[in-house]
Amino acid sequence: MVLKVGILGGANIANKISRAINSIPDVAQVVVVGSREASKAAAFIERNKLVHASPVAGYDAVLDFPGVEAVYIPLPTALHVEWVQKAASKGLHIVLEKPIAIEDEHVDAIVKAAADANVVLFDGTMWMHHPRTAAMEAALQEIGPVWDVDSAFTFKGSADFLENNVRVKADGDPLGALGDVGWYCVRAILWAYDFTPPTHVAAHHGALFNEAGVPLNIAATLLFPGGRKARFLAAFDTVFTSKLEVYGDRGSLRLRDFVIPTAEHEASFVVATANGLADGDTRIATVEETRTVRNAVTQEAALWQRFAREIEVVRAGGRAPEYWPRIAALTERVLSAVLASARQGCALLPFEHRA
Amino acid sequence: MVLKVGILGGANIANKISRAINSIPDVAQVVVVGSREASKAAAFIERNKLVHASPVAGYDAVLDFPGVEAVYIPLPTALHVEWVQKAASKGLHIVLEKPIAIEDEHVDAIVKAAADANVVLFDGTMWMHHPRTAAMEAALQEIGPVWDVDSAFTFKGSADFLENNVRVKADGDPLGALGDVGWYCVRAILWAYDFTPPTHVAAHHGALFNEAGVPLNIAATLLFPGGRKARFLAAFDTVFTSKLEVYGDRGSLRLRDFVIPTAEHEASFVVATANGLADGDTRIATVEETRTVRNAVTQEAALWQRFAREIEVVRAGGRAPEYWPRIAALTERVLSAVLASARQGCALLPFEHRA
Repeated sequence: MVLKVGILGGANIANKISRAINSIPDVAQVVVVGSREASKAAAFIERNKLVHASPVAGYDAVLDFPGVEAVYIPLPTALHVEWVQKAASKGLHIVLEKPIAIEDEHVDAIVKAAADANVVLFDGTMWMHHPRTAAMEAALQEIGPVWDVDSAFTFKGSADFLENNVRVKADGDPLGALGDVGWYCVRAILWAYDFTPPTHVAAHHGALFNEAGVPLNIAATLLFPGGRKARFLAAFDTVFTSKLEVYGDRGSLRLRDFVIPTAEHEASFVVATANGLADGDTRIATVEETRTVRNAVTQEAALWQRFAREIEVVRAGGRAPEYWPRIAALTERVLSAVLASARQGCALLPFEHRA
Repeated sequence: MVLKVGILGGANIANKISRAINSIPDVAQVVVVGSREASKAAAFIERNKLVHASPVAGYDAVLDFPGVEAVYIPLPTALHVEWVQKAASKGLHIVLEKPIAIEDEHVDAIVKAAADANVVLFDGTMWMHHPRTAAMEAALQEIGPVWDVDSAFTFKGSADFLENNVRVKADGDPLGALGDVGWYCVRAILWAYDFTPPTHVAAHHGALFNEAGVPLNIAATLLFPGGRKARFLAAFDTVFTSKLEVYGDRGSLRLRDFVIPTAEHEASFVVATANGLADGDTRIATVEETRTVRNAVTQEAALWQRFAREIEVVRAGGRAPEYWPRIAALTERVLSAVLASARQGCALLPFEHRA
């Protein structure tokens, strides 16, 4: 049964999602796109060759469109809670772009709305759904209990980006680089620790905020039970990098394209199991293996495949999984705590986990 | 004119230096090795095939050995200031193992002793002398003004190491992982910033100290003029890594064997000049180049070659270069400041530079 999807707004990222949905026609189909003006929705539909979709004016009309079962919400973060609540109240399943919310209470409201309505709620973290990620999870078992994680996702925004993009606006995405690129780093750290919440969070000194108070460059340390740690850097002012390194008791895992792979149909990562000094400390010996995973569809299409499978469970009378809203909420709360630390002189803040 | 070298003590690292000096017989020659017992010095000489060297009892006998012109000092850090002062007062040139000192006043005393006596003073940072480093300096010009640096040097010490090694002893090398592996990270950061001193230093939360107060795992942020930054991690409790990443305005440079190369006669690094998202953000496009440099001699031998060349200048009536003591002192002072920050609750400390 093909999942009938509505899209709220024509944000840039929605083009990519439209292509993904088009690539899996037996799984999902966009049936409606809403924009503030119907003409903009029509242009979006034409540009993205959404041959089964109708344009409508406004987002309410998407939710009320006949036959729509799920919505994709790429609206500015400030609007998320309102539209999640509306969509969930109508029994629509939701893919919500990251960051999912600004205020912690909105995170709670979003999770509650989905749970109360028994709808599937996914955030837009595409790399979680790449088969490479499953392969990396297996590798984490090999390299032993995780002891440290280091991640960075940075790019150097143009002057126009740093002036005008919604991601640097206090009334758009006030979490800035933290909510945008930092989301992926924090998610990856939590993923590596199997979604154990940190015990403490501390921003690093040297964060950069714009005049509106939106973080453009922010780094932090997360502390986990038993002396385990992680660090990340999220920045709009630093030349491109996208790295994840996980250090376990018996080895390490690393990749430099964890958010978006360098190739469309295969993706790799490196597992190092016995690196160290050798020959009287005159050279570094590396025992490393590059593992490559083939993927039939892109990671964004894989997200929609999994989303559709979860919906099948609900259609069959089951409960929507708690896992996806839980890790979305945890990711968002860690981001909030990092921002709070940065605003409190980089204080070490205990992380209060609400299950 | 072959440089006649004396070695103070038979520390492990002295084996590697002996091999290096043996590999350049037209440049330098070990003529004397002193140990607390002459028999130990004799065993060291035999083991390292130092065919021109005599064993002596005690370190004073090395300084007074006929014809000796330079000394290699791999003694525990606590002994450095005493033996540098003694050696310099006798006009001997010095290669001093890192970390060069524990207390800042000892750093000053060491630099002053060398300057007063007009002797060449090198620290033992071998990678600085690899031809790869010169190639990387050229690459730094290409990738533009440096904006950020990330470095880590870690290994997982055995239970025996963590219990008994001199590097975890308060009366041996009380700077622990900071003075040992952290020295290289801090040196690399300063190198990338052309030895501009940082304006501020802050340790990260989550450092681990042993019962004697010696750091086993410590990370920090260094702030540089104009919003530029750097981070590093130094650890004895984390599986092996040895990485340096430099982010400039126009690209980045990285390598995972910056301290000791993976091969004896060639070494590589990666320069990325146009990495970023491509094709509607569906993939990461990488424009990267691996550059490989051939080296005729090992980096430790290259250190001794350069040391001998600097001595030639002094022999010809010139002044010993201020550069090498200056960067050694700067490196050490940054380490001290990081430790001070860690001991003051990870406070952001202004870095007071004394030229």
